[in-house]
Amino acid sequence: MGQKSIDLCISPALFHLYDPRGKAVVVVDIFRATTSICAAFDHGVKEIIPVAGFEEARQYGNKGYLIAAERDGIKPDFADFGNSPFNFMKQGLQEATIVYSTTNGTKAIQLAEPADEVVIASFINLTAVATHLARSQRDVIIMCAGWKNRFSLEDTLFGGALAEMLLKHHQFTTDCDATNAAIDIWDTARKDLMAYKAKFAHTHRLKKLMLDDVVGFCLTPDQTRSVPLYSKGRITV
Amino acid sequence: MGQKSIDLCISPALFHLYDPRGKAVVVVDIFRATTSICAAFDHGVKEIIPVAGFEEARQYGNKGYLIAAERDGIKPDFADFGNSPFNFMKQGLQEATIVYSTTNGTKAIQLAEPADEVVIASFINLTAVATHLARSQRDVIIMCAGWKNRFSLEDTLFGGALAEMLLKHHQFTTDCDATNAAIDIWDTARKDLMAYKAKFAHTHRLKKLMLDDVVGFCLTPDQTRSVPLYSKGRITV
Repeated sequence: MGQKSIDLCISPALFHLYDPRGKAVVVVDIFRATTSICAAFDHGVKEIIPVAGFEEARQYGNKGYLIAAERDGIKPDFADFGNSPFNFMKQGLQEATIVYSTTNGTKAIQLAEPADEVVIASFINLTAVATHLARSQRDVIIMCAGWKNRFSLEDTLFGGALAEMLLKHHQFTTDCDATNAAIDIWDTARKDLMAYKAKFAHTHRLKKLMLDDVVGFCLTPDQTRSVPLYSKGRITV
Repeated sequence: MGQKSIDLCISPALFHLYDPRGKAVVVVDIFRATTSICAAFDHGVKEIIPVAGFEEARQYGNKGYLIAAERDGIKPDFADFGNSPFNFMKQGLQEATIVYSTTNGTKAIQLAEPADEVVIASFINLTAVATHLARSQRDVIIMCAGWKNRFSLEDTLFGGALAEMLLKHHQFTTDCDATNAAIDIWDTARKDLMAYKAKFAHTHRLKKLMLDDVVGFCLTPDQTRSVPLYSKGRITV
């Protein structure tokens, strides 16, 4: 098996600079969309339909679908619940279909559609994602969902953790500056991830909204073996 | 004096997400445009006219202007010289006006035009730029020229060095994830910058073109006190 390449794209607004065809795109939105999706499948959810706009989510709601939605951390009235992973881990969601719309994550997932495979990743399924990618022949692009198209420290940090695992233990190589930068950031942060979280602008955003109960959960690696995949408008495992 | 903010924009393609009005924008293209511009003024050049396109550069050439130009490291036929800082440090350029067009840097400089002040920065004038920014009341946006709109490790690294200096010794603050990431990268790299340079994709690009004689020069801090400023189409000191 030849060496597969790793690229890291730090914002969906730069994704057009990469060619995802024939590759695996790994979508990352640590706070909180991709963590929530991984948690959902670990708790028996059947499928998640990501939608970018609220109007589309509302229409699904009118048809009786369960709706999870959030903009800037706030749940809109028409949604059944917001963006916290804890919402997706409740009793009664086994075998459920959930329609999901968020500020950054769900848009990034849809953007990755031209890839051969779209993988939903977060710290909670880090090793499972690395193992999954190692088994495939595909080159990898890690796409950070970011914050309104800006650089997001926690997403890039995760990109570094995943890239380091792929380079160290599997047949991967990289000549991508963003990947090398992300690995250095991960190398600085890993020594004390819970202290490092104070650097994330998003930690402070969540704290202001009293939504920061999820931070520790979102930064704890390997809580599930689920590897959700997005294809043809739906996320399943 | 209140605290001034620092933001770091890792690619010109994300610059529209920031509001430069009333602020100082610091443009960085370590390999090689902004290093060359700083070197030029240190050696007595009078003004530099950055132009994005070759056609415009060629027209200036027809009018008798000195032309420096480069695409992907290669000097076009019509240019008097390419993108190496050493070209800008020669005898005979005292009081010269040079028209300059490069792959990434000159476009980034023009993009910064709506700012209150556009500062040309590189390792070779690092401390001079920090001192200049410290004397002003303006918030700062550091704009990395990147590589064809992708993340560039050496530009972001410099952003970290500058941000760290502003936060440590002057009245600045930041809540920008990209700034904090850049500082961590700088903190990793500073221990041995000459060894760290092997991580830059651009070092390898320059090496292939046998243009890597400039790498050491471009990474050596504080060789000049010149702080070139861009205004109304011209760079001067």
